[in-house]
Amino acid sequence: MTEKATRLYPLPPREIAAESIYEDLELPPAGRADSHRPYVIINMVSSVDGKTAIGGKAARIGSQTDRRTMQNLRSHADAVMIGANTLRAEKLSLALDDPSDKPQPLAIIATRTGDVPLESNLILGEEQEVLLLFPRELPGYPCGRARRLLASEGPSGHVDLVEALEMLKAEYGVDVLLVEGGPTLNHALISRGLADELFLTLAPKLLGSGISESRTILDGGPLPQETSTPVLLSVHLVGDELFLRYKVEGPGIMHNTT
Amino acid sequence: MTEKATRLYPLPPREIAAESIYEDLELPPAGRADSHRPYVIINMVSSVDGKTAIGGKAARIGSQTDRRTMQNLRSHADAVMIGANTLRAEKLSLALDDPSDKPQPLAIIATRTGDVPLESNLILGEEQEVLLLFPRELPGYPCGRARRLLASEGPSGHVDLVEALEMLKAEYGVDVLLVEGGPTLNHALISRGLADELFLTLAPKLLGSGISESRTILDGGPLPQETSTPVLLSVHLVGDELFLRYKVEGPGIMHNTT
Repeated sequence: MTEKATRLYPLPPREIAAESIYEDLELPPAGRADSHRPYVIINMVSSVDGKTAIGGKAARIGSQTDRRTMQNLRSHADAVMIGANTLRAEKLSLALDDPSDKPQPLAIIATRTGDVPLESNLILGEEQEVLLLFPRELPGYPCGRARRLLASEGPSGHVDLVEALEMLKAEYGVDVLLVEGGPTLNHALISRGLADELFLTLAPKLLGSGISESRTILDGGPLPQETSTPVLLSVHLVGDELFLRYKVEGPGIMHNTT
Repeated sequence: MTEKATRLYPLPPREIAAESIYEDLELPPAGRADSHRPYVIINMVSSVDGKTAIGGKAARIGSQTDRRTMQNLRSHADAVMIGANTLRAEKLSLALDDPSDKPQPLAIIATRTGDVPLESNLILGEEQEVLLLFPRELPGYPCGRARRLLASEGPSGHVDLVEALEMLKAEYGVDVLLVEGGPTLNHALISRGLADELFLTLAPKLLGSGISESRTILDGGPLPQETSTPVLLSVHLVGDELFLRYKVEGPGIMHNTT
């Protein structure tokens, strides 16, 4: 790929190869305090009108460069997590395209119901491990190649994410966790102060789809004030596509003391 | 206001006063072919997660600088149009804050039902005129100070926008029309190839509100291919707030030949 990107911000502007966007990030950032949970980054693509799916699928919104930035972010992550709804919507991979010099990130699917189409929809990288994140109460479920991580059930019937993230760090050594949606999982993390950064690709598209198709990057109730004012860290431009990186200001690390 | 803005794009970056964003636009742009309709620009503010309203109201999303850019865009417009839903949602003005050296833009409310809370919700500038845009079939409605422009009824029961825009140009001399929402009116214009530019303020907020509150800048069906790939014209940054200007590529000027 010979396409050029311009880092517009921070100044001064700098031209780089489009394939290098987010390649040299330091994650977690230097000086981060010891934490009981992984450093959590969320990566999403949306249209200019804020939509994250075309006909329920996200795959067609971003460009090849967006796909490459996703790969670069995955290369910094020990694990890549999605919600089961996102896997139900389309066939996808949570792997590195080029696994030559890296171990594959652990693939994690958060599921409340156990209805996870692993066989049909999850494309696994070579030697990539899969972890299903269940609320503890869920009865046994045939997981095939996947292992299971059982965390407590949170108030909404979903997995208790505070406990789950602590277990991912303590038991699986996940220090950087990349979350790739969907909107409900993103919201659950941000609203609980469990997300550190948001990478948003603003694709030069207007989708205009109606309410039933109008999923945005966050779906849930209003957010508490302290998580609702992200700080812009960088802006890259390739063609008409913008790559935005935000620090999500949370209420600090929530430590599960139960 | 002494706040600084940085124009990040086009390059090279340039620092300007925040209050000057969009102040010196040439609208309509030079070289535009003769047209039977006004040059239509849409101005919206959304959160990073694509939402355009907090509790149904847009007013609290953008910053003071966003308000100023809105004023600057209004100063380029002969008329400012909104849909009646937007006026029903909150008390607002379509006027210039400082009318000293300008005639006020004509305020236009597009309404299908005639249910327009002019008295309670529309704050009028001094000597500002108001025009209600009706589908022709609507029975008489007490308009008070407002005049009425009767256009044909389009397929959905809303005003035929092609005809309405031609009448605005021919009968009211509107050469630049600023549209400030809501999402349904924006969508109706863009989907018919009647919008030329989109100004989007991306406010550094995460709202996360649920489906019922999740209005994005466009609400309607999927857009035709040719209107769905906007071209980025400029990017300004003030603090963490991005001001994006897009050219909307439409199928060309649609002329009503009936």
